[in-house]
Amino acid sequence: MKKEISAEIMTIGDELLYGQVIDTNSAWLGQELGKIGIRVKQITSISDNPDAITEALNQAISRADVILITGGLGPTKDDLTKHTLTRYFNTELQLHQPSLDDVEEIFRKYNRPMLEVNRQQAFLPASCTPIRNVLGTASGMLFYEQETVIVSMPGVPFEMKRMVTDTVIPYLKQHFALPKIIHKVVQTVGIGESFLAEKIADWEDNLPPNLKLAYLPFLAGVRLRLTGFSQEGLDLETQLQEQVDKLSALLPDNIFAYGEVSLEEAIGQMLKDQNLSIATAESCTGGLVAHKLTSVPGSSAYFMGSVVAYSNEVKKAQLGVPAQTLETHGAVSEETVKAMAQGVRQLLKTDIGISTSGIAGPDGGTPEKPVGTIWIAYADAHQTIARKINYNKTRLLNIEYTALQVLDLIRQSLRRRVEE
Amino acid sequence: MKKEISAEIMTIGDELLYGQVIDTNSAWLGQELGKIGIRVKQITSISDNPDAITEALNQAISRADVILITGGLGPTKDDLTKHTLTRYFNTELQLHQPSLDDVEEIFRKYNRPMLEVNRQQAFLPASCTPIRNVLGTASGMLFYEQETVIVSMPGVPFEMKRMVTDTVIPYLKQHFALPKIIHKVVQTVGIGESFLAEKIADWEDNLPPNLKLAYLPFLAGVRLRLTGFSQEGLDLETQLQEQVDKLSALLPDNIFAYGEVSLEEAIGQMLKDQNLSIATAESCTGGLVAHKLTSVPGSSAYFMGSVVAYSNEVKKAQLGVPAQTLETHGAVSEETVKAMAQGVRQLLKTDIGISTSGIAGPDGGTPEKPVGTIWIAYADAHQTIARKINYNKTRLLNIEYTALQVLDLIRQSLRRRVEE
Repeated sequence: MKKEISAEIMTIGDELLYGQVIDTNSAWLGQELGKIGIRVKQITSISDNPDAITEALNQAISRADVILITGGLGPTKDDLTKHTLTRYFNTELQLHQPSLDDVEEIFRKYNRPMLEVNRQQAFLPASCTPIRNVLGTASGMLFYEQETVIVSMPGVPFEMKRMVTDTVIPYLKQHFALPKIIHKVVQTVGIGESFLAEKIADWEDNLPPNLKLAYLPFLAGVRLRLTGFSQEGLDLETQLQEQVDKLSALLPDNIFAYGEVSLEEAIGQMLKDQNLSIATAESCTGGLVAHKLTSVPGSSAYFMGSVVAYSNEVKKAQLGVPAQTLETHGAVSEETVKAMAQGVRQLLKTDIGISTSGIAGPDGGTPEKPVGTIWIAYADAHQTIARKINYNKTRLLNIEYTALQVLDLIRQSLRRRVEE
Repeated sequence: MKKEISAEIMTIGDELLYGQVIDTNSAWLGQELGKIGIRVKQITSISDNPDAITEALNQAISRADVILITGGLGPTKDDLTKHTLTRYFNTELQLHQPSLDDVEEIFRKYNRPMLEVNRQQAFLPASCTPIRNVLGTASGMLFYEQETVIVSMPGVPFEMKRMVTDTVIPYLKQHFALPKIIHKVVQTVGIGESFLAEKIADWEDNLPPNLKLAYLPFLAGVRLRLTGFSQEGLDLETQLQEQVDKLSALLPDNIFAYGEVSLEEAIGQMLKDQNLSIATAESCTGGLVAHKLTSVPGSSAYFMGSVVAYSNEVKKAQLGVPAQTLETHGAVSEETVKAMAQGVRQLLKTDIGISTSGIAGPDGGTPEKPVGTIWIAYADAHQTIARKINYNKTRLLNIEYTALQVLDLIRQSLRRRVEE
């Protein structure tokens, strides 16, 4: 078994520590490194401060084979990374003509006057291998120290990503003897993390040692990620697929997709495959189900529209919910959501209609119908199904959770249509 | 001047290192700690691995007064944080009855059978102060070691946030002698960060040294946070308010609220104050505007509903857009959005109707109407205003940006109504 190559990511900038900017670079770098079999062991965010950078670097070099640094290379005076690295590697800054040419080219392009601070950006540590930045004024730098590769890049995501794709990844593939890693993602919905874990415990316990399972929960389900590390004389792809098949057999009702597919994308595909159109009638979800369905490119092929019926007037006038139903059972009731789902189906002339009505809170609850009491329904030409949800977190979470439950109800109903 | 209290954040989980999940907890924690004058010096993301957790903890304790740990407390096998902390602090797990009661209560509430793994979650290190989790099954833990406060919380953002707000922040305020800090937030919309910075440069340059300004940009505007550090013999509140008043005078058109108020909340208040009702007719935004408006508690007082008209059929049949208009000008046109806004206003009998129609992409663009071509409109009894937006990032960003532009159009129109 080859030695595993480990990486650490260092992101530099006070804006990250103060929470003014969310660090999205690290996740992207983690994915890109994972694809070539380099495993990220730590991500460290620190201040634009020589001592902090030096200490973090000392520790990272003692642990990692690769260190990717982003941020701290701008022209402003609070960006000290380049000077700190120059001192750290006992070298000095010298003009790098190709970098200066690139910087001048950029200012020509936007015909802005080039400032001395920008010219300074073309001065790079003598001992580094400069990494070209075709999208900005700060070049990247590659150092090699104690068998560790250290790469410093700007924090601007699109500049950094271009450097990684064009230069850093090819270099790492060629520099290291990398193991092969394959990830397989199994998307489940409608089962909590602990129930899922219980259900697949035996399978998980019997996984070969080169396979690792991770639970990645979201509001209505869990993404399962199975990671395989290649071994001598082993067909990793086949081994992983065999385990995914075993897993699938254990979860006949909860898997909605394999790979990086969202629930709404999976439903969109089912609707396309079955050539069905859909519309939503939403009260408590206030349009979120429609938003999720339409967040999928090409959704206009199956999504016709919705009626967000917040007031009872709209429920009656647009969706044809009988006044009698609303008076007798109330807006949050099985009878009302069924009438809404059927109503929107007829109104917008679709194969399927779905509906939601509930008390999202924080106000509006009663002893009989406390906050979190929510009814959802699915209607097509053959049947109308209603379900009651009891879920009471924050208003937004109640709404989000309900929308996901509706999507799962659509998924289950579409699956039954195929089976019947 | 008091000693500055420094914090470090540790986020635990392979999903962060693999880049399958973006760490948003750290940024939120950085902001919350900043509000009480605690400065985050480092954020470290590590694996669900005892050695990694122990090493990171050793280093953090040597540097920080406060360590906030998130993640690694789920019931599943790959969550090892609690056991690692138990060993680290030389204590043992013991049943914490109140936690068990909470866990049992949660399972009662959703009437699901409670599993042994969930019962195990109520076993906590004997030496810790348990932190109640009212939203989930994993309790938080507070330790005190070498004058450092160590807090371990679940990684699920809404559970963690509730713990921090209810328990951790109050504890830190009472445990440490923190400098007196006051924040004033000024919410702006419709002006980019660099233009805003230019507009208020003189004011910013002349701020007293004990006041610091932070730019917190979002998709359609910038939150400005003015932070004041108390000084001997100074009325900080008055000093801050004077600066906020000066700032307000510089931005007559762009400030929509003071304090932590969202654009949809600000609009909701304006609608209540003016006693007006509203409905939306959405094509490209697919219900997102309705979702944003209804995400505000009490929005049923002014929001009646909407028609998400994805197909032209729905635009014609429900919103009464003339077939002629759609044929001559197309669905993405000034004429169509005006007809949609007027149509939904009449259909749902509201004072105000708003509408959206555009090409969100990635497909559907033409040379005349490329992806990112979007029309929005506002209609009331007196006027109908349409605006064209050109914005082409990703599909979801185009949709999100459009929704925010619509909200700003509502805000500006409501403001004019008052002035007239």
